[in-house]
This record gives sequence, C-alpha cells and structure tokens, in this order.
Amino acid sequence: MVGYDEAVYREVLGKAVSNIEEINKAVDEICDQGYKNLYLMGSGGTYSMASPVTYLLKTHSTIPWNWEIAAELIKAKPLSLNADSVVITASLSGTTTETIEAARYAQSVGAKVIALVGEDGCPLAECADYVFENPNASNDNLVEEIYIQYFAIAARFMRNNGEFPEYDEFVSALRKMPEVLQAVREQQDETALAFATAHKDTPFHMCVGSGNVWGETYCFAMCVLEEMQWIATKSIHAAEFFHGTIEMTDPDMSFMLFKSEDETRSLVDRVERFVRQHTDKVQVWDTKAFELDGIDPKIRPLVSPLVMSAMLERVSTHFSIVRDHDLDIRRYYRVVEY
Amino acid sequence: MVGYDEAVYREVLGKAVSNIEEINKAVDEICDQGYKNLYLMGSGGTYSMASPVTYLLKTHSTIPWNWEIAAELIKAKPLSLNADSVVITASLSGTTTETIEAARYAQSVGAKVIALVGEDGCPLAECADYVFENPNASNDNLVEEIYIQYFAIAARFMRNNGEFPEYDEFVSALRKMPEVLQAVREQQDETALAFATAHKDTPFHMCVGSGNVWGETYCFAMCVLEEMQWIATKSIHAAEFFHGTIEMTDPDMSFMLFKSEDETRSLVDRVERFVRQHTDKVQVWDTKAFELDGIDPKIRPLVSPLVMSAMLERVSTHFSIVRDHDLDIRRYYRVVEY
Repeated sequence: MVGYDEAVYREVLGKAVSNIEEINKAVDEICDQGYKNLYLMGSGGTYSMASPVTYLLKTHSTIPWNWEIAAELIKAKPLSLNADSVVITASLSGTTTETIEAARYAQSVGAKVIALVGEDGCPLAECADYVFENPNASNDNLVEEIYIQYFAIAARFMRNNGEFPEYDEFVSALRKMPEVLQAVREQQDETALAFATAHKDTPFHMCVGSGNVWGETYCFAMCVLEEMQWIATKSIHAAEFFHGTIEMTDPDMSFMLFKSEDETRSLVDRVERFVRQHTDKVQVWDTKAFELDGIDPKIRPLVSPLVMSAMLERVSTHFSIVRDHDLDIRRYYRVVEY
Repeated sequence: MVGYDEAVYREVLGKAVSNIEEINKAVDEICDQGYKNLYLMGSGGTYSMASPVTYLLKTHSTIPWNWEIAAELIKAKPLSLNADSVVITASLSGTTTETIEAARYAQSVGAKVIALVGEDGCPLAECADYVFENPNASNDNLVEEIYIQYFAIAARFMRNNGEFPEYDEFVSALRKMPEVLQAVREQQDETALAFATAHKDTPFHMCVGSGNVWGETYCFAMCVLEEMQWIATKSIHAAEFFHGTIEMTDPDMSFMLFKSEDETRSLVDRVERFVRQHTDKVQVWDTKAFELDGIDPKIRPLVSPLVMSAMLERVSTHFSIVRDHDLDIRRYYRVVEY
C-alpha cells in the first residue's frame, strides 16, 4: 500500500499492546490509593481521540469523567479537578504547549497525570506521573496506537470499579488490533483511492457521525481535511443534524457519514436515509464492512473507533497523493507566530 | 426596534424571573430527597442552551453533571443516569420528539425530570416531574427566558450543595435581566443592522467562541445562520481553532468571534489577533461593550451568555429583513418526512 510502512505500523501498534502490562500496574496503583473522577484532556487530535473513551465510560461505567480541551482547562480551572482526580492525556511530540500547561496545572492541584508520548523525556513526560512511550509513533499510525492505550487505561479503571464484565474479551481484542487493523487497511485501500480520486476537487464535505465514532468524525474533518488538505468541512453529530444543519442539504453537497456498530448507529442510518433523497454525493464509512478476524461479535461495536481510524488513514493518504498535497504541509500551525 | 415586541419580551422574561420562586421550591425538595448527578439534555437549540450551565457547574461546583443530546441519550442509555439523577431539559413547543422520548426514558429509570416549556399540558410536560411554563415565549425571546430559568435551577443546586457564594448576587442579577437585556437590544440594534447589511450576501461564516458563550457560538451558527437563513457556517471552539481549522484562514473568510467576559476570554483574543493579520472580515461580538446597569462587575462574566443572546437576536432579525428571508421558513424540518 502506498504512503505506508507495514513493518512500522505493526511495530508501533505492537508497542501500544505491550504497554498494557505497565498500564495495568499504574491503574491498579492509582485505584489502590483511591480517586474520584477521570479527566480526559487533549488538544485537537488528542482531544478528539478521547471521545470514544468518554463514550465507553458513559455506556459501561459509573465512574465520573470529564472531557476537556487543554487550553480551556487551563483557564476554566474546573472545581472538580483536584487531588482526587486522574488526568489522562497524550501528545505525540510531547511538546504541545497547551497540553503540557494543562498537565502541569493538574499536577499543581494534586491530580495524577497519565501521559502517552512518543519519546520518554519529552516535555509532557516531565509533568506526568505515569508515562507510556512509543518511540516510532508518527502521524501515520498515531490514532490507533493511542486508542489501544486509552482504551486499556479506561477499561482497567472500569474493571477495578467492579463493572465492565467484557473487560477480558475487550483487552484480548485490543491485543489483536495490530493484525486486525492491518487487514482493515488492506481491504479499505481501493475504496479509499476511488473516493479520493472522485473527490479530488470537491471543495466542501459535510461530516456526520455519532457515538464512539463522533471523535473520528470531528477529527477527520478538522485534523485531516482542514489542517492537512485545506479542504473546507463542517462536522455535525448525527443526533443534532436534524435540528439545524439539515436545512443546508443540497444536491451539490458531499456528505461523509461515519457509521459505527454501537447503539447510535441508527442515528446515522436516519441521516443517510434523508440525504440520499436529496444528493448523490453520499459516502458511508461503515465499520461493519470489515471482517475483523477473531473479534467476538459482541466486542465489535467497542472497537469501531479503531476500525474507523484505520479506514480513514487510507483516505487521508490517497487524498494527499491524488491531490499532490503532502499531509505535513502547514500554512500557519507552528509556521507563523500567534 | 423592528421585528420585535418590547412588551412581550419584558413579559416573557418577567415570567421566567417570577418562576424562580417555584424553581427554588422544586430544587429544595429534590435536594432534601437526595440525588447524585445532573443531566442537562436537549436537542439543537435547547442542547446548546445547556452549554453555559455546564460551564457554570464546571467552574463553580463539584456536583457531577453530564451534557447530553436527547437523541443520543435514548440510544446510549448512560449507566450513571438512574434513580439518583436529575434531568434538566426544555422545549418551547413541548413537542420535540427526541427530547420527549429522552425524558420518558429518564423517568423510566427513576430519574427526576425538570422541564421548561411554553404551555403546561404539552407532551413534554406529561413526562416531567417539575414543569415551569412560559405561555408567551416564542423564538424571539426563547433563549434568554430559558437561560434565566436554567441558571436559577443550577445555581440553587449549587447553593444547596454548600458552594457558589455568589448565589444571592447572581439570582439578583437574573431578576434584573428583563431591564438589562432590553437595554442591550437597544444598544446593539444599529451594529447588528450594519453587520447584516454588509454581510447580506456572504456565503460562509467561521464562528469561534469559548467558555460560557460556546453554546451561543454553536447555536448561532447552526440554529440561526444554517437553519433560519440557509447560510453555511462552521463553529469551532477557540481552544481548538489552532489545532486544525486555523489552516482554513483566508483573506476572503468572514470570521465571527464570540467574546464573553469569563476566564476563557483570552482564548478568543488570541484567535482575534491571528485572524486580523489575515483577513479584514472580522466581527467581534463582545459582551463587554454593554453597560449592564446595576450588575456587579464580578457577576458580569456569569451573565455573558444572556447578554450575547440578546445581542445576537438583533443580528438574526436584521439578517431576516435585509435578506428578505423569514426566520420561520424551513425546507425540510417538520416539512418533509425523515
């Protein structure tokens, strides 16, 4: 497959899986000491990657959690973020200013910080109590390696809280992800190329998703199409679409629908039924189209975000090639002062 | 002022204020019986109107809260939503299907439901334990009347939880809102007309806000510009702007920046500094420009969402007149089947 190094992909996801042992020890230690709530915190990509974790906690746990944008957390100083809190965050470079500052603030009020980073010793690692590193991670494989670890962390908290009976099967599924997601990328490659070719010059995409792939919807729109391809988007939750954005539906509008196998799938089905009556430009990214060898049917919905991410990486890469627009080019971010 | 009936506005806001007595009794009763968490729930406009309440709870309270889209709540069935929960919701017509269904689900698991509605006896009122009605409320005055009551509810829970020392002053400020917001509308009228005239044919607006006016940002983009004017938008949180959407900045892009007086104001200042270097089309909606007679300086930031809403109503109305596009016209919503 173009724009993709399978050996590195397997290695990085394998490292994420092998971190699970240490993750369990860290979480067990925190649970022994006691805590009251979790804060999922990040900036842009790492903010959106926390979304499926919040969905897992919402649907399978009673642990109180909060989902925060780093730069806002620093200003808002949430009153429930204190010495009884655990902050879970990530930064590939470990140099994202707002994320570092938010982690430092969290530590200053006595919260414990768990950080996923590229290299240990990076600035974010300096203000974390528990650090899990993955040295060869890059933008090509980042999301899935972070999902594996984020999910392993949250699942362990849930198990230790006497809930989430699916724990063992879920973690076993996470361990299979390097193999499973490689197959997803292979199966998705042709579809992704066809889509990128057909939409080479499409100026705007309306992205609609829900549940545990809402983060993927938001992230693909903002961090891939806008940031890496300079293509305009709007992302809207499928549960909100009918309460405003529906009026923008137009025969010329391109819709990308992000469909998970979780409980909220029917919300996107409903949007699909509607938009298909009004435009031919509808692309459904559906995790259900993939075999996921060895993954139990009842666990499949829980890993939909990982599958979606692997699917979308192929779309990003083909867009960058077909449009001759490298994914690393920026006009402003870390280029100009602001 | 055009498109606006001052007498009705004062009456509807006055009714919201006069509901505070009964709101206090209801909340006191719930607190006496005990509860563990709050769910702010709605669809579209009423979902976004809960946003400043979540921000108030985040910054001034330790009560666990959750913010839910009605249609997703029904599917996801949050595990923490149970007999120890209080659901706070609203629907002007009282007929929003998803909101009704979510309220019914909440009651089925034993949660208490507080609903703000137009007319008592509407379908939503049938599945609520506490109902506060405001018969003459309409789209022209809806947001502020809901804010007054939402804030009064949340503030009472916080006071009864032994926190929010600003309670008395805050409620006293809410009581002054009919007078204060009328003055805001008058002062804003000319600016709003000038903006609507200048942007009569602008095809797209990038809306950026934060903190307690994030809900206004999201809502103005989706429920006013998209739904009521069919003008394309994207709304993005100021804390996220620099992590992707920044790359779309262009000399031709119109930016609307929504500036509150809360702790996150500097996040929008930062976006403003950046975009002013790249485009001349920057409109800042700033609550600070208004006098707010009788409101204590330290309470001002807490009522920014109300001020912003009053400011934006003028913009909506002038857009509808200048563009000859009535705010009630819909292509699809409640017009076609879906």
